[in-house]
Amino acid sequence: MKSGDSRPIGIFDSGMGGLTVFNEVKKSLPNEDIIYFGDTAHLPYGNKSPESVTEFSLRIRDFFKEKKVKLMLVACNTASVYAIEKLQKSSDIPVLGVVDAGVRAALKYEPESCGIIGTYGTIKSGSYEKKLNNASGSKLRLLSKACPLFVPLVEEGWLDNDITRAVAHRYLDIFKDKIDLLILGCTHYPLLIDIISEVVGKKVRVINSAVEIAAQVRRETENLNLGAAKKGSASYKFYVSDSPELFKEQSTIFMNGTDGKIKKKDLNS
Amino acid sequence: MKSGDSRPIGIFDSGMGGLTVFNEVKKSLPNEDIIYFGDTAHLPYGNKSPESVTEFSLRIRDFFKEKKVKLMLVACNTASVYAIEKLQKSSDIPVLGVVDAGVRAALKYEPESCGIIGTYGTIKSGSYEKKLNNASGSKLRLLSKACPLFVPLVEEGWLDNDITRAVAHRYLDIFKDKIDLLILGCTHYPLLIDIISEVVGKKVRVINSAVEIAAQVRRETENLNLGAAKKGSASYKFYVSDSPELFKEQSTIFMNGTDGKIKKKDLNS
Repeated sequence: MKSGDSRPIGIFDSGMGGLTVFNEVKKSLPNEDIIYFGDTAHLPYGNKSPESVTEFSLRIRDFFKEKKVKLMLVACNTASVYAIEKLQKSSDIPVLGVVDAGVRAALKYEPESCGIIGTYGTIKSGSYEKKLNNASGSKLRLLSKACPLFVPLVEEGWLDNDITRAVAHRYLDIFKDKIDLLILGCTHYPLLIDIISEVVGKKVRVINSAVEIAAQVRRETENLNLGAAKKGSASYKFYVSDSPELFKEQSTIFMNGTDGKIKKKDLNS
Repeated sequence: MKSGDSRPIGIFDSGMGGLTVFNEVKKSLPNEDIIYFGDTAHLPYGNKSPESVTEFSLRIRDFFKEKKVKLMLVACNTASVYAIEKLQKSSDIPVLGVVDAGVRAALKYEPESCGIIGTYGTIKSGSYEKKLNNASGSKLRLLSKACPLFVPLVEEGWLDNDITRAVAHRYLDIFKDKIDLLILGCTHYPLLIDIISEVVGKKVRVINSAVEIAAQVRRETENLNLGAAKKGSASYKFYVSDSPELFKEQSTIFMNGTDGKIKKKDLNS
């Protein structure tokens, strides 16, 4: 990278799920400082209204502005669905969302039929479907399904047991022989990728938006000359709207051993 | 009832679960007007910190004060655990919580051993255990278990299927032959009472705090002369901190056909 823009990248999610995105960005861009915001006082976003999710997202944008973030990543599918346009229009830095990243990645493989899974909010919005239809000229066959139990299963740490497998069958059997690609439309789902792949069958390509958005951030920082200069070690800071101790406890499963200071930031003030 | 105190009773919860309490109070006291507050912008409370849950509860108390409520019911176990003392100390009306109601009801049956199930927050707090120990002189054998998947299972409407039964076994088999009474320490759980009773065995008495607190409200209104005079029909008003439409949609399973206006009330303003 040519430049030496040392400002941090900002990543936000309603809680811990976005850490799957954080992990991929960290891996893909090891020199970049990252500020992660988890809106744990409002978590999860999946069952909140578009208005509330947009309002929360705009408050997080203001916080990132204060912190002089150079690029903002919406690691939450629900916020990417409801708030991305407002965030992009009202920010003078690039704002990338997991939904666009997932859609772009899916289309690269030129599937004929595509499945989408996510929270009730994400699926109900029809946002993936609209974007996929627009980009493909409505040629793609689409099938989507809300899988609300996947998030609590991940948070319970039941990544591979009989119950999780039974739930996966209940949600995913409708895709049997109907799709050649499946988009994981929720940041918790990559932790269930093995069981999901097993249930939908090996022939189905599974798109992990966390990996896709990390690749996009890498391209974007290169294109816009936003890359940080090489240095000793990058710094990672975590902010949450509820208790930092609780976040530390609840996020173990996502953290892959990353260490970083977790601070509280109240969004109402 | 002697008096004619027409002020409403206030009931709050993080979301829909407290409607199990609302339903019982409505059944037990058909002449009383009720204001229900669901803090849906922060739902669920079970994975939030004590400080945040207390702060939210105090804001709801202020709203109830504005609405001239005569008695306040904390229908959320997590809020009953974390915030009840502060609410009681800072209110000039009676404040009743589901935890105390559940404990009192359990002790009435003089069990030798008692199980408690609830969210992570409720169980981690050890609040039921402390209260049961204090009241019984630590003579009771206690065994508790957090069952975080029960809430999303109820919200998914899976009240009786193989998956819910398997989850119930996973959580509850530790109680086998160990308890003679089980407290449902979460307002969603009464909707799973059949499956829970089946799994813990018919010999175990299951305590539904919603029923217990409704009985307590009845006694309290009689004792304190707070009862409303008999009249045509009681009025029910619902306030939520997120979208009213979304609440209507999500609460169908709890509402038992009750109709009432749902309005938005932002807790930050």
